[in-house]
Amino acid sequence: MSQNIYDDEDFFNNYAQLLRSQEGLKGAPEWPDLEALLPDLTGKNVADLGCGYGWFCRAARQKGAAEVRGFDLSEKMLEKARSFGTDPAIIYKRADLETLELPEAHFDLVYSSLALHYVADLAGLFRRIFTALKSGGSLVFSMEHPIYTAPLRQQWEMRNGELTWPLNNYLNEGERRTNWLADGVIKQHRMESTILNLLIETGFTLKHLNDWGPGPEVLRVEPELARERERPAFLLVKAAR
Amino acid sequence: MSQNIYDDEDFFNNYAQLLRSQEGLKGAPEWPDLEALLPDLTGKNVADLGCGYGWFCRAARQKGAAEVRGFDLSEKMLEKARSFGTDPAIIYKRADLETLELPEAHFDLVYSSLALHYVADLAGLFRRIFTALKSGGSLVFSMEHPIYTAPLRQQWEMRNGELTWPLNNYLNEGERRTNWLADGVIKQHRMESTILNLLIETGFTLKHLNDWGPGPEVLRVEPELARERERPAFLLVKAAR
Repeated sequence: MSQNIYDDEDFFNNYAQLLRSQEGLKGAPEWPDLEALLPDLTGKNVADLGCGYGWFCRAARQKGAAEVRGFDLSEKMLEKARSFGTDPAIIYKRADLETLELPEAHFDLVYSSLALHYVADLAGLFRRIFTALKSGGSLVFSMEHPIYTAPLRQQWEMRNGELTWPLNNYLNEGERRTNWLADGVIKQHRMESTILNLLIETGFTLKHLNDWGPGPEVLRVEPELARERERPAFLLVKAAR
Repeated sequence: MSQNIYDDEDFFNNYAQLLRSQEGLKGAPEWPDLEALLPDLTGKNVADLGCGYGWFCRAARQKGAAEVRGFDLSEKMLEKARSFGTDPAIIYKRADLETLELPEAHFDLVYSSLALHYVADLAGLFRRIFTALKSGGSLVFSMEHPIYTAPLRQQWEMRNGELTWPLNNYLNEGERRTNWLADGVIKQHRMESTILNLLIETGFTLKHLNDWGPGPEVLRVEPELARERERPAFLLVKAAR
């Protein structure tokens, strides 16, 4: 079973302070670029893997989705999601992405925001997502970028007046322990090519990729994010069954 | 027109000292992984963009190719390629990849080794390659990895006893001037996602990717390459029309 860091009280409380927790999708600077990858959701079936507070589930309903299923390992997250009100077309369910079972050929969109870097058996999850999608259905996800997860110490450094991200261990895939919001958070580092080959080998067609950092429109509103152009923080992917 | 650094006397002489120049494909540690991406070449038409000394052109003939066309901007490189002997099925031709014209639906394989990071109009070249391939044909190439080309200063640094590649400017695409083999060599930096999106938008299907660094078999023979696992030096791609 996966580490359930989101039910750790310190982690949960620190997570609650993030802009993306308080303001939802509009507090996430990568959201407009992720949203641009979504298919038309009118009348469609949607799954959100690692749904957290349920911001995307509710947005999917507003975009016309017929049915939305939100999955998360954290009871606290699901409780918070449910606290936003009841919509019979949104079903929140506790599930571990390592073992999640989904109905066959049921979904038009499987979505996941910043959860897949926690998953050890990513090949298995991609296979289960592929089977759960209808033909022509889409997988749209963000995850921490391999350049971000690679170094044993994930922190900026100044060198000769230049901000740098001291990259190493990129080819050494596997577990990374970081201290983001709480100590000892376990993430999985994989090369960008490994993630994309897993999708290709599963049968997905790659449609669009984004080594994400803030563009000019984001920087106009949040100039303090400028350093996020030195190295991509997230990888955004759209793939089709 | 592209910078013709390979006809610069210093560059050419330094290039001639590289193991990959002297020994050809077997002197290039990434070759086995690139070779693994090749389709069966028996009776096939092959183009090599940036053919250099012609090592791959001759290998393609040994693998049974019916016709091989090698293109390079450098007269010195082509002269050297021709010095290995005459094969009527191999045609070497001077060409700038920025403007290269290829026959339509003629090739089963377009190959390129470590040349595409010099090309400014990569979208245009991909379009011309796509048109030159038969349906079902393959594009197989290596280029300098975006992690390698991104920083303004491309050099290793020791930090707290750890070897690091001080990455920055990853999202700032465009020209980079480096001093590899000669001063002021101009390369083009693009994000990995940009390169792959250009292929997808052209109509290619991505088949396999490799953020390349040496594996255990390479390191057994060349242990001094171990640091090349800290960050990928090359990007290897197989795409299909």
